[in-house]
Amino acid sequence: MDLKIGDAVSVKKIFSQEEVLAYARSSGDTNPVHFDIEYAAKTTFKDPIVQGLFVASLFGGLLGSKLPGKGTIHLGQTLQFLKPIYVNEEIEATIRIISIRSDKPVITFQATCIKENGDIAITGEAVVIYRGENFK
Amino acid sequence: MDLKIGDAVSVKKIFSQEEVLAYARSSGDTNPVHFDIEYAAKTTFKDPIVQGLFVASLFGGLLGSKLPGKGTIHLGQTLQFLKPIYVNEEIEATIRIISIRSDKPVITFQATCIKENGDIAITGEAVVIYRGENFK
Repeated sequence: MDLKIGDAVSVKKIFSQEEVLAYARSSGDTNPVHFDIEYAAKTTFKDPIVQGLFVASLFGGLLGSKLPGKGTIHLGQTLQFLKPIYVNEEIEATIRIISIRSDKPVITFQATCIKENGDIAITGEAVVIYRGENFK
Repeated sequence: MDLKIGDAVSVKKIFSQEEVLAYARSSGDTNPVHFDIEYAAKTTFKDPIVQGLFVASLFGGLLGSKLPGKGTIHLGQTLQFLKPIYVNEEIEATIRIISIRSDKPVITFQATCIKENGDIAITGEAVVIYRGENFK
């Protein structure tokens, strides 16, 4: 695979209430702001919001499936959660190569998630090592 | 809530193959290393591994449910994925307060995930703002 700085892939996604509930159960997160409409209405958010780390799962999905794809090992991730993302809101996650080490296949990506209204909701960096399709 | 440096909470968890598959579907991650036993056997891991960001969901769960709990907003997260965590392996995630801002309720935690064999699998920091149980 020929990888170069600037290469990018994106995915659009709507997180459903059902997905947010399943993730809350797996992660042991009982915070009602993610699924309790009445509670959420009393908060600054007004409506249920998706867990920030769950939204960031899209970065892992892009890395493991698209760029570089199968054979990718996630080494590190930074995340800043700038704006809430709502249940049933369509958002777009993008990863873009910002550096490639010359001595080994370690690649750094800028990772960004944009809201329907154009606001940046999440920004950060992902670092991976790519061992290729048939790594041992 | 009276929070101080050094306060910590932990949770033990076994990620099942079913949970890992559901997460893979939600995140669009088709990387077979997470669910294909034959493929995983050919890799350096030998067995299916849990997505690193999915394991990190336990930090979100602890923050939103236990310390500080309801009213917590996740502002930032750093993660280093040091060792693989296997499907069906029991691991323990811990968050520990390392700083509290004096001017506003912004709290920084060290976040660690330990494998069954005692190795540190994930380390990082979480930053939250805590608006209390009845924040508006």
